[in-house]
Amino acid sequence: MHETPIARRIAFIVEIDKLKGVLRKNKPVTLERYENAAEHSWQVALLALTLAPHAPVALDIERVIRLLLVHDIGEIDSGDTLFYAASAEDKAEEAEGARRIFSLLPPAQAAEMFALWEEFEAAQSAEARFARAMDRLMPILLNLNREGQSWRENGVRADDVRSRAASQVDAGCPDAGRWLADALENAEARGYFAR
Amino acid sequence: MHETPIARRIAFIVEIDKLKGVLRKNKPVTLERYENAAEHSWQVALLALTLAPHAPVALDIERVIRLLLVHDIGEIDSGDTLFYAASAEDKAEEAEGARRIFSLLPPAQAAEMFALWEEFEAAQSAEARFARAMDRLMPILLNLNREGQSWRENGVRADDVRSRAASQVDAGCPDAGRWLADALENAEARGYFAR
Repeated sequence: MHETPIARRIAFIVEIDKLKGVLRKNKPVTLERYENAAEHSWQVALLALTLAPHAPVALDIERVIRLLLVHDIGEIDSGDTLFYAASAEDKAEEAEGARRIFSLLPPAQAAEMFALWEEFEAAQSAEARFARAMDRLMPILLNLNREGQSWRENGVRADDVRSRAASQVDAGCPDAGRWLADALENAEARGYFAR
Repeated sequence: MHETPIARRIAFIVEIDKLKGVLRKNKPVTLERYENAAEHSWQVALLALTLAPHAPVALDIERVIRLLLVHDIGEIDSGDTLFYAASAEDKAEEAEGARRIFSLLPPAQAAEMFALWEEFEAAQSAEARFARAMDRLMPILLNLNREGQSWRENGVRADDVRSRAASQVDAGCPDAGRWLADALENAEARGYFAR
């Protein structure tokens, strides 16, 4: 049953169902549970589509969306790591996971999908930089609407967010970076960060 | 803070976070909880991208993905209804919800996004028909991998799936329809349906 191209494609879709069980550090704004990497992938793809008018250069927004739809698939094998604490080992494990999972697809399509995953990680193309800005911005938006829940739970300070996450938002989407600078100042005044 | 275009866009993304709390009738393959409409929206968008080589006519797969990213947003206000039991009232409430939520965006973008939502519902364009085939196929794939969990819980018989869901899969993506006919026969032999 897993031999024809369509059967391989369906086996892939069933395998990636596991991303719904990969928990992240943020909670949704109105729910008392942690979010998972599958629902995050949906939200960040839609964030990119919504903020497309603020892309700093002409870019292929459709490829940005593809990058974001697949960017966390390797976490099925490695789990999610707090962005501020990710190691080279975590990334290597995630890459191995991505390779294993995309290999369920027919070979040419597996290579295409893995190339999207690698492009996101390499952060070189305009599309990858915009996609990464969205991926940095999304958990910050949740924190801004939950009194800094994951920042306080994980000892993340305002300076960490500014120097490591907001800087990437700014690099990929300066309009969002400007909006965010004000929002972070406000959040700091309200005590949303670890000290 | 909600006045500039970017602030409106961000308010929209925060509002749609609620889709993570809209529960559907299926459970993920490996988890003991119901899936939500946000993670479903991710999975079905990726299903469309993965099955794009099986699209029956030349179509804009990027628009298919957009349709699927927004297709359930109205359910934030209406909740999810079992496909086999949806009424005209449910649909009207969902349309009102979509209108309310997209209106958080700057007007031109709100109109664009609502047009995507309406295109999916109208089921007229090749893109909408393919998107709807994916939306019908996805819960069936989960059921095939969970011994018919949502079918048995909701009294759905093999004939209901064939005449109402599989027929739409077949109409939008004949390759998937053929694969599915065999899979449903197998599932029936195993007793995955309500009787």
